[in-house]
Amino acid sequence: MIKSASIIGSGNVATHLAKALFNAGVEIKSIYSPTLANCRGLADKVSAKPVENIADIDSSADIIIISVKDDAIHNVVEELNNDKAIIVHTSGGVNIDVFEGYSDRCGVLYPLQTFSKDREIDFSRVPLFVEASNKNVYAEIEDLAKRLSNYVVEANSEKRKTLHVAAVFACNFVNHCYDISEQILKENGLSFSALLPLIEETTNKIYEISPYDAQTGPARRNDVTVMNNHLKKIKNQTFKDIYTLLSKSITERYK
Amino acid sequence: MIKSASIIGSGNVATHLAKALFNAGVEIKSIYSPTLANCRGLADKVSAKPVENIADIDSSADIIIISVKDDAIHNVVEELNNDKAIIVHTSGGVNIDVFEGYSDRCGVLYPLQTFSKDREIDFSRVPLFVEASNKNVYAEIEDLAKRLSNYVVEANSEKRKTLHVAAVFACNFVNHCYDISEQILKENGLSFSALLPLIEETTNKIYEISPYDAQTGPARRNDVTVMNNHLKKIKNQTFKDIYTLLSKSITERYK
Repeated sequence: MIKSASIIGSGNVATHLAKALFNAGVEIKSIYSPTLANCRGLADKVSAKPVENIADIDSSADIIIISVKDDAIHNVVEELNNDKAIIVHTSGGVNIDVFEGYSDRCGVLYPLQTFSKDREIDFSRVPLFVEASNKNVYAEIEDLAKRLSNYVVEANSEKRKTLHVAAVFACNFVNHCYDISEQILKENGLSFSALLPLIEETTNKIYEISPYDAQTGPARRNDVTVMNNHLKKIKNQTFKDIYTLLSKSITERYK
Repeated sequence: MIKSASIIGSGNVATHLAKALFNAGVEIKSIYSPTLANCRGLADKVSAKPVENIADIDSSADIIIISVKDDAIHNVVEELNNDKAIIVHTSGGVNIDVFEGYSDRCGVLYPLQTFSKDREIDFSRVPLFVEASNKNVYAEIEDLAKRLSNYVVEANSEKRKTLHVAAVFACNFVNHCYDISEQILKENGLSFSALLPLIEETTNKIYEISPYDAQTGPARRNDVTVMNNHLKKIKNQTFKDIYTLLSKSITERYK
């Protein structure tokens, strides 16, 4: 059973995961991050030792969790020098085969959620997708994951990538649409708060009906006059392009 | 005080508005809609008389509410022959000057919400934006609106258009992103339900932090490797184009 962890990274995912582990009684031995201030702040919160070099990571931990930018994972793995801990990363997009030399005890623990540092989250409701290099390691990671969340599912690297792409549409692009919406309102002296009941209902709907059935608006009705008027109202060229492309995609879907 | 209404239209907005009026004790005298089956179904629910021609609309009502496609409003106004009722439409995108010949007693009652017929809605929380041709008419429409909703605000035609454009981004495009997300998951044998906690949190966030601050994901980090991998994973060309354009827009925003 995994009782202790060292963490590499101090970004949004590392922060929330470290707190969840700490709250579940897992000892956080040390935390490394190139941004030392972040690292110290997080280490403080979970009673861990902040370290300034990967080589100084406490390698007696049962698991080493790498939670850094996708591009940086490979280098971290190369710099690690560990002969007993389970090594995992937390990325949706990186294949398990990044763990060259650790194929007997590596895996992935991917939390499918949007994390912002200053916002608390109920980790028990975060879906965790687990992959491992073999059955024993899978059992260890799964056992740990189940101490953190009620929603633990196996997903290989391909499934995880699909989930990550889908999450970009359902979260990152959705949030950007909110952002554009706020910018358009602000330009015209209007408050974003007027849209909150609409936003709430748009989201609540899909718990009961499919997004396909939930679609409303001028593009679904192919109401060309309305769409042309809207385009005249939008000043920013990128927002115009987004309006045109998404409307086209919606209209095609309901042809 | 407005005590009775006749309604033209039987779509999503007309349906929810008619029910809200009925529940608020307003007598619905008659309903006209070119789709007679819809019209009868709705009339039945609100104890109104369904009529087959606009000319048969009960013109003794205190208000006539036109809730049809934007393109059709002008024709409905031309066909109306009424010398005493207040006439309003419910569209975000149509100017009040569509009411030629009724400039002494016309207005707009625009509900900023996404309505689906089979889904109940708490109308008291729907923001209603009101415009009118003069103060007396405004007072009448506002009084009616306040009997339906706790959120009644004045908005002229330009403000209303802006709200409508913003709503397309925050609701219609958001829902389409959910839809694309579901399609990508389905193609790969995965269930949309795995994304529900993420979707819930994405929406909950913006009650506390601005969408600008809430943004996460590869485009915000300008993580080009992840974005290129995602594009390889997406098969549908329109979805690829949407991924590219929205990612570019996000990356530019955080430059």
